[in-house]
Amino acid sequence: MAVIAIVGAGMMGSALSTPLLANGHELRLVGTPLDHDIIAALKAGQPHPKLRAAVPGVSAYFVDELPGALDGVEAIALGVSSAGVGWAASALGPELSRAPKPVLMVSKGLVWQHDRLEVLPDVLRARLPAAAADQVWPGGVAGPCSAGELLQKVPTSVVFTGRSLEACEAWAKLARGPFYFVHTTTDVVGAETCAALKNAFAMGVGFGAGLHEARGGQHGSVAHHNYESGVFAQAVPEMQRVVALGGGDPQSAVGLPGSGDLMVTCNGGRTGRFGKWLGLGLSLREAIDKMEGATLECLEVLRELDQALSRFDQLGKIRSDELPLLRHLTDVALRGAPVAMPFASFGR
Amino acid sequence: MAVIAIVGAGMMGSALSTPLLANGHELRLVGTPLDHDIIAALKAGQPHPKLRAAVPGVSAYFVDELPGALDGVEAIALGVSSAGVGWAASALGPELSRAPKPVLMVSKGLVWQHDRLEVLPDVLRARLPAAAADQVWPGGVAGPCSAGELLQKVPTSVVFTGRSLEACEAWAKLARGPFYFVHTTTDVVGAETCAALKNAFAMGVGFGAGLHEARGGQHGSVAHHNYESGVFAQAVPEMQRVVALGGGDPQSAVGLPGSGDLMVTCNGGRTGRFGKWLGLGLSLREAIDKMEGATLECLEVLRELDQALSRFDQLGKIRSDELPLLRHLTDVALRGAPVAMPFASFGR
Repeated sequence: MAVIAIVGAGMMGSALSTPLLANGHELRLVGTPLDHDIIAALKAGQPHPKLRAAVPGVSAYFVDELPGALDGVEAIALGVSSAGVGWAASALGPELSRAPKPVLMVSKGLVWQHDRLEVLPDVLRARLPAAAADQVWPGGVAGPCSAGELLQKVPTSVVFTGRSLEACEAWAKLARGPFYFVHTTTDVVGAETCAALKNAFAMGVGFGAGLHEARGGQHGSVAHHNYESGVFAQAVPEMQRVVALGGGDPQSAVGLPGSGDLMVTCNGGRTGRFGKWLGLGLSLREAIDKMEGATLECLEVLRELDQALSRFDQLGKIRSDELPLLRHLTDVALRGAPVAMPFASFGR
Repeated sequence: MAVIAIVGAGMMGSALSTPLLANGHELRLVGTPLDHDIIAALKAGQPHPKLRAAVPGVSAYFVDELPGALDGVEAIALGVSSAGVGWAASALGPELSRAPKPVLMVSKGLVWQHDRLEVLPDVLRARLPAAAADQVWPGGVAGPCSAGELLQKVPTSVVFTGRSLEACEAWAKLARGPFYFVHTTTDVVGAETCAALKNAFAMGVGFGAGLHEARGGQHGSVAHHNYESGVFAQAVPEMQRVVALGGGDPQSAVGLPGSGDLMVTCNGGRTGRFGKWLGLGLSLREAIDKMEGATLECLEVLRELDQALSRFDQLGKIRSDELPLLRHLTDVALRGAPVAMPFASFGR
């Protein structure tokens, strides 16, 4: 049994405690500077404010208690947003330099920099102090995992991915169990690219529910599932293409990180709700207002993708008739274009 | 504008009339020997008994009116079950020998014969009289299409597939329109294999809803979507593998015929309900009884697949650790094994 720290007390970071506790590990959940209210609630024995459920068995720490919380820790999971990666590198750098250990990011994201789309484990490593970066190869988690369900021990299949298979396997050994099925792969570009892209595509699938409602349709067997599935079936090959552009394995888009995670993301959640508002005909501004400040990962990833597409077009790396779905999603979500799914341009 | 006959008045055959009528064609809907009640209802101006909706604008014909109904027809669509293909070949043989024309099958199925899995357009052609078979290359329709939604003109993307691209394009030209997006491909093995397999896999995805209910769970955001998506993400690569075994293009499993059709099939319908009963813990017999005689395509296709897998194993065409999901589904649906999803054997 190991002592493990999860840094970042959002939904996914907190839910990862469930399979780890089931394996008998000691769990320390440390808030980031943004997680004060969550940690305060947990310390007071209240439910997790975002998961709306208890997270039993973990010891909770405020961010200023981080140094003590890392004392004697054998592995670290990291649940911060793309924007928090710099903070995490600074916060964990000293400890990882002193005592390197496996790091697993539950965060999802893509960052357009250095003329390429970079995945978060690489972004983190590049920001670590040299002494840490020399010995730590951060990994990431991809695949279909709703945090609330993992907390309820619903059977969940995921992929731990990183440039060091050894580091992934070390983490997998800690986490794998009777309801948490962990596969490993070094295709970190493929798996993490899909993990980020799925939010963008789930927004597009969500248009269908809005269009259905706009037509006066009720929830039921006759909905806009043909529309949604037509978008889904274009999303998976477009994920393959973006993965290939980044040098990853397109097959990752077919399995858990791609089709699997896209499917779970289409089954509810804020990304789908945001897409629904747009499909219903709300303007971009109105749809964003409806979400009342919720983080919209779909917009974050589409902003990075938009830069990437412009540059790929410019360099002739992609043809103008490629990725019609992704192009439409950027037009809708970043430039306020009306929803008008270009089905005729899609592939088979 | 053309005169078109749809032979077989089930849900999908009948719904295909919607995009064709929207393009201004004259439509004749002809019942098979099993469709007497449907045709009687339509002739009496009543709703279609299975679609529970009117099918406006079509002329309905009983099976004994077939010869007259085919008079002057320029294209034929065929909506019969696998079991009805022999009847269809006999019924249409004379007309197709006299005046060959494009034939499009909306039926889905796979038949294990001649030591291989054969797709229905090939099965039909092999049964046509030589004079017809020499000139007619039947096609099929694959991709996500709920009949009830097509009837409501919900945007729908499909693939017309056959060994003659010319014949597919002839049919696509008749059917393509503002809410019916038709792609064409000669990968009839890939597309039709996926069209048949999706029912088997949708049954497996359906286990999740039953397991959730068995745990006392209500419908809501915390369900068994992680489980369902884990099965989905294994289904798509297993479709690729079965397609490859038949000599088809595995990429068909990634797009509309595979991931797309599987997704729409998981959004309700009898296959999912049947899977739910099994997931809930009912025995195979109890689950079949619950379906009250409804056709269970998932069982039909699994019976053919089961023969195929035995033979492929025997010939060493597949390893025993391949297709673990499909093997489990045959064990559950044909041999009454309890539901115990082998997630640990799945791929990434």
